[in-house]
Amino acid sequence: MLSKKYSIGIDFGTKSGRAVLVDVDNGKEVATSVLEYPNGVIDEYLPLEKERIKLGTDWALQDPNDYLEVVYVTIPEVIQKANISPENVIGLGIDFTACTMLPVDQRGEPLSNKKSFKNRPNAWVKLWKHHAAQPYANKLNEVAEKRGEKFLKRYGGKISSEWLFPKIWQILDEAPDIYKATDRFMEATDWVIMKLTGVEKRNISTTGYKAIWSKDSGYPDKKFFKALDPKLENVVEEKLSTDIYELGEKAGNLKEVIAKKVNLSSDVAVAVANVDSFVSVPAVKVSKPSKMVMVMGTSICHMVIDEKEKFVPGMTGVIKDGILPGYYGYEAGQSAVGDIFEWYINEGVPSYFKKEAKDNNMNVYDYLEKKASKLGPGESGLLALDWWNGNRSVLVDADLTGMILGLHLNSKPGEIYRALIEATAFGTNKIIRTFEESGVNIDELYACGGLVQKNETLMQIYADVTNKPIKIAASQQTPALGAAMHGAVAAGSKNGGYDDIHEAIYNMAHLKDKKYHPIPKNVKIYKKLYREYERLHDYFGLGENDVMKKLKNIKQKYE
Amino acid sequence: MLSKKYSIGIDFGTKSGRAVLVDVDNGKEVATSVLEYPNGVIDEYLPLEKERIKLGTDWALQDPNDYLEVVYVTIPEVIQKANISPENVIGLGIDFTACTMLPVDQRGEPLSNKKSFKNRPNAWVKLWKHHAAQPYANKLNEVAEKRGEKFLKRYGGKISSEWLFPKIWQILDEAPDIYKATDRFMEATDWVIMKLTGVEKRNISTTGYKAIWSKDSGYPDKKFFKALDPKLENVVEEKLSTDIYELGEKAGNLKEVIAKKVNLSSDVAVAVANVDSFVSVPAVKVSKPSKMVMVMGTSICHMVIDEKEKFVPGMTGVIKDGILPGYYGYEAGQSAVGDIFEWYINEGVPSYFKKEAKDNNMNVYDYLEKKASKLGPGESGLLALDWWNGNRSVLVDADLTGMILGLHLNSKPGEIYRALIEATAFGTNKIIRTFEESGVNIDELYACGGLVQKNETLMQIYADVTNKPIKIAASQQTPALGAAMHGAVAAGSKNGGYDDIHEAIYNMAHLKDKKYHPIPKNVKIYKKLYREYERLHDYFGLGENDVMKKLKNIKQKYE
Repeated sequence: MLSKKYSIGIDFGTKSGRAVLVDVDNGKEVATSVLEYPNGVIDEYLPLEKERIKLGTDWALQDPNDYLEVVYVTIPEVIQKANISPENVIGLGIDFTACTMLPVDQRGEPLSNKKSFKNRPNAWVKLWKHHAAQPYANKLNEVAEKRGEKFLKRYGGKISSEWLFPKIWQILDEAPDIYKATDRFMEATDWVIMKLTGVEKRNISTTGYKAIWSKDSGYPDKKFFKALDPKLENVVEEKLSTDIYELGEKAGNLKEVIAKKVNLSSDVAVAVANVDSFVSVPAVKVSKPSKMVMVMGTSICHMVIDEKEKFVPGMTGVIKDGILPGYYGYEAGQSAVGDIFEWYINEGVPSYFKKEAKDNNMNVYDYLEKKASKLGPGESGLLALDWWNGNRSVLVDADLTGMILGLHLNSKPGEIYRALIEATAFGTNKIIRTFEESGVNIDELYACGGLVQKNETLMQIYADVTNKPIKIAASQQTPALGAAMHGAVAAGSKNGGYDDIHEAIYNMAHLKDKKYHPIPKNVKIYKKLYREYERLHDYFGLGENDVMKKLKNIKQKYE
Repeated sequence: MLSKKYSIGIDFGTKSGRAVLVDVDNGKEVATSVLEYPNGVIDEYLPLEKERIKLGTDWALQDPNDYLEVVYVTIPEVIQKANISPENVIGLGIDFTACTMLPVDQRGEPLSNKKSFKNRPNAWVKLWKHHAAQPYANKLNEVAEKRGEKFLKRYGGKISSEWLFPKIWQILDEAPDIYKATDRFMEATDWVIMKLTGVEKRNISTTGYKAIWSKDSGYPDKKFFKALDPKLENVVEEKLSTDIYELGEKAGNLKEVIAKKVNLSSDVAVAVANVDSFVSVPAVKVSKPSKMVMVMGTSICHMVIDEKEKFVPGMTGVIKDGILPGYYGYEAGQSAVGDIFEWYINEGVPSYFKKEAKDNNMNVYDYLEKKASKLGPGESGLLALDWWNGNRSVLVDADLTGMILGLHLNSKPGEIYRALIEATAFGTNKIIRTFEESGVNIDELYACGGLVQKNETLMQIYADVTNKPIKIAASQQTPALGAAMHGAVAAGSKNGGYDDIHEAIYNMAHLKDKKYHPIPKNVKIYKKLYREYERLHDYFGLGENDVMKKLKNIKQKYE
C-alpha cells in the first residue's frame, strides 16, 4: 500500500492566514493552523514605533511581512498537528483577498520594508477594501466611457476603486517618488508565490478580474493609459509582468531555504497563485453552469460559470478560464456583509443586550440570531440599504453609504439585526436578478464561508428572499481546501495528485446533507419588501438623490 | 412687614409629577418635590396583579391614581422643605401633558378604577403619546376634508391622532360598552382640578387645541360627528362639558378634605387647569409676538403668539387666548426629541462606549455630548429624519418612522448622536420656516425644558441650524413655575398675588445671562445639510415614497 498523500492550502484572509493540510484522496481536512496578522488591517495609523502617521478616510493597508509570517508559522504547525511525514506533502496552493497589491523593488522587496519609504502610506500593501482610490476610479471610468473602451462591458460597465489601476494611479499621483522607485506592482497573492518559489508567475485570475486583462485583447491600450495621465502611458511595460499563467499550473518548487524553514521537502509542487473566492467554487463541488456560489464572510463574493460570454451590468467581471478552465467565469459581490454585522455588534448593540446574552450563556451573535429568528419577514418594520462599505455589485460605487429606515422608539436590537441580514439578502437578490435578466441562468445557490455554518436564520432568510434552494459546503474552510485542491493539481497524478481540477472536485469536494428551501409564505412577503428595497436602491444609488455623495463630500472637507 | 406669599405649581409630566413652591414676589423657587408615577407609562401590559393584558403597538396609557398620589406626596413635601407656614400659600396651579384623557363616570371616578372595566385597556388614561388612534384620525381627516370643514385650517390641515376625538372614537369603536358607561371624557388636567376643587371647569387651552373648539365657532357640527359614525352624533352634548374657562381664572378653593390631607389651607385659590407647554411661555418671560418658545424635553413644543390669526400648514393649532390672553396662540411640535436620544442611549450605545464614559467619570449623555462637540457640522457624514415617534409638525403623521443615512463601517456613537441632534434641529427649523412662510414672524428663540440646561452642544446646533439667537429660561422647572404663576393670578392682588399674567411675568419670570448666537461658518454648512434634510423630508413625508407606511402595514399584520 502506498502511503497517503497530502496537499496544503493556505488561505490569506482579511485578518488572518489559515493553513489546512488535506488528504488528497478524499479531501479530508487533517489539520488546521491559523495566524492573525500581527498588524491586522491598518486603517488608522501606520504601525511604526517612533512616528504617528495618520491615514485618511477609506484607507486600508497591510504589512506584507505578516503574510510570510503566516507561511512560517502555520505550515510547520499543520505538519506537526497531523503527525505525518513531510515528504508525503506533494502540493501547496494559496489563495488571497484581491485586489490586494503592493509596490516592490527589483529584488521583489516591498517598498514598505525600506527605511526611506516605510513612513509613507502609499508604500504599503493596499488591501482589497482600501477605498481611497475612488476619485481615480471615477476619472478612469469617465475617460474609458468617453473613449468607448470595450473592456468596460466585461466589468459590468465600471472599474472598481478596489482594483489595480486606480490603486496604482493613486500612488503615482500622491507619491510620484514611490511610483518611480517601484520596479513592479504585484498582487500580494503572486508576491507570496514568488517568495516561495523564487519566480514571478502572474496568475490569470487577478490579472483578468482586477487588472483589466483578457486572453483575447490583453491589457488596455497605451493610448488609454496616456489619456488618464501621460506618466501612466507605459505602466504595463514598465511596472507589470505580462506573462500570465493558468490556475492549477505549477509555479515551481519550494525554494530550498523556505522548505527548510517550514519543514517541507523542496519537491513540493507550488500552484500558481489564486483568489479566495475563486478557489471556493471547486471546493463547494460546483463544476457546471447555473449554480451560483456565494462565499459569505466579511463580504460576499458571487460566482457562476457559463459556456457563453454575456455582459451583466455591475458584475465585477467575466473572464475566460478565470474561475474554472473551459468556462467563462463571472464574478459579482457585496462589499460588506459580515462586516456590517460586526460593526453593529461593536458599535450598535447596547450593554443590556450583551448582559442578557451572557445571562443566557450565549455569545452576542447567537443571541442576536435567536432574537431575529423569532421575527417573521417584515415584523421588524425596518428596511436597510446594505451599503456600509459602498456598493460593489450592481452599482460599483464605493461612495454610497448605509441607511436604515423604519426606526421607532420601540425598535430593538433583534429587529435591527434582522433588518441588516435582510438588507444583505436583498443585495444578493439584486445581483441574482441582474444576472438572470442578462441571460445568465441561476437555478440554485451554493454557500460557503464564515457566515454559513452557524447562522441558520440568516441562511433561511437568503433562501426566502432569493426564492432559491441553498446547498452548503461541508468544509468550514473552503478557500483553504480549494487552494489545497489546486496544489494537488499542480503536483499532477504522477506524484499522487490529479491531472485537472475536475478530478480534484470529484474526489475532494463535499456538500452537507442540510439544505435550505424557500418557505412560500415568507417568499411572498419578501417579494413585497424587495420591491421597496429596490426602489430605495435605485433612488439613492442611481443618482436621483445623490445625498450620500454630498454628505461624503462635506465630511471629507474635515480631513 | 407683611409675611411672604407663596404659590405652588405642579407639573404633571410624562413620567413624573413635580411640585415647586415659589415666592410670589420674585419667582424664586423655594422648594421642589418630585414623584415618579408608580405605574409610569403603561405601554406593554396593564398593571394588574392577576391578569396579563398585553397592549398593541403604539398604545400608551397611564393610571389616574398616580396623579393624585403626586398631589398627596409632593405638596406636603415642598411645604416641609421650605419650612414655611402653610397659610402663606395663596395659590395653586397645575399643568399637564395633553391631550391626556380619560373616561369617568357620573361621580367623576375613572372607569379604570372600576372592577368591571379595569382589565380593559380602553378604560385607562390615554396618554398624549398613545398613537393607536391613528386609523381614526385618518378617517376623521378624510371626512373633514371631504366635507370642507373649516376647522381644519386652524389645525394646520390635520387633526392629530393624539387628540381627543380620535381617542374617543377609538373607545367607541373598540369598546362600545365603555363608551356607553362613560359620563364624560375629560382631559386629565381638568380631572385633577376637579378632584382638588370639587367642580369641573374645562380649560380653554386643551379644549381649543385638542378638542377642535374655538371661541368663534365652538365644537364641530353634529352633522360632522354623525358623518364619522352615527353613534358619535351627540358626543359633545352627551359626553363633554361645554362650559369653558380662561387661563388664570380661579377654578375654586381647595376642597376641605384635600386641604387637610396635603397640609394647606382651604382658602388656597386653585387656577383653572393648564398645559405644560403653554404655562412655559410666561415662565420664560415671553409676552410679545415674534419670540418662539421651545419647551425641549422628551418632545419639543413650539409656541408663538401673534396679534393676527394666520393659518400655518402642519401647526397643531391656533387658538385665541389659548396661550396668553389677548393674543392668538400658535402651537407646533416635534413628537420625539429627548425620547430619541434616550432610545439611542438605551438601544444603540455600545458597551465599550459606556465603559469609556465611566473611565472618564462621565455619564453616557455627557460623554456623548463631549464626543459630538468635537465634530463640526456634517463631519459625521450622517443625516437622519427625526421621526422615531412619527411627525407632529408639519406633516401631522404618526405613521412616519425614523431614518438614518450615511452609515459606514467607521461610524461611531458620537457621530450618530450628533446626527440625531442635528435631525431634531432640522425638524425645528422646518417648523420655524413654515411659520415664517405663512406670515408669522419669528426673530428669536426662547428655550426651556430638560434638554436646555446641560447640553451646550445641542443648543449651539439649534442656534446654528435655525440661524436665530436662543435665550434660556433661568428656571430649570419652567412648567411648574408657570403653573405657580397662574396660581398667583388666580389668587389675585387682594390676596397677595397678581391681577393678570403680565404682572406675574414681569415679577416672577427670569432669563439666564448665557445666550446662544449662530456661528456664521456653521450656519453656512447647515444650510446645505438642511436642503438635503428637507428633500428627504418631502420624499418620505409627502407621499412620493410611502415605504414607511407600507412597512408599518406589514408589521401590524403580526399583531
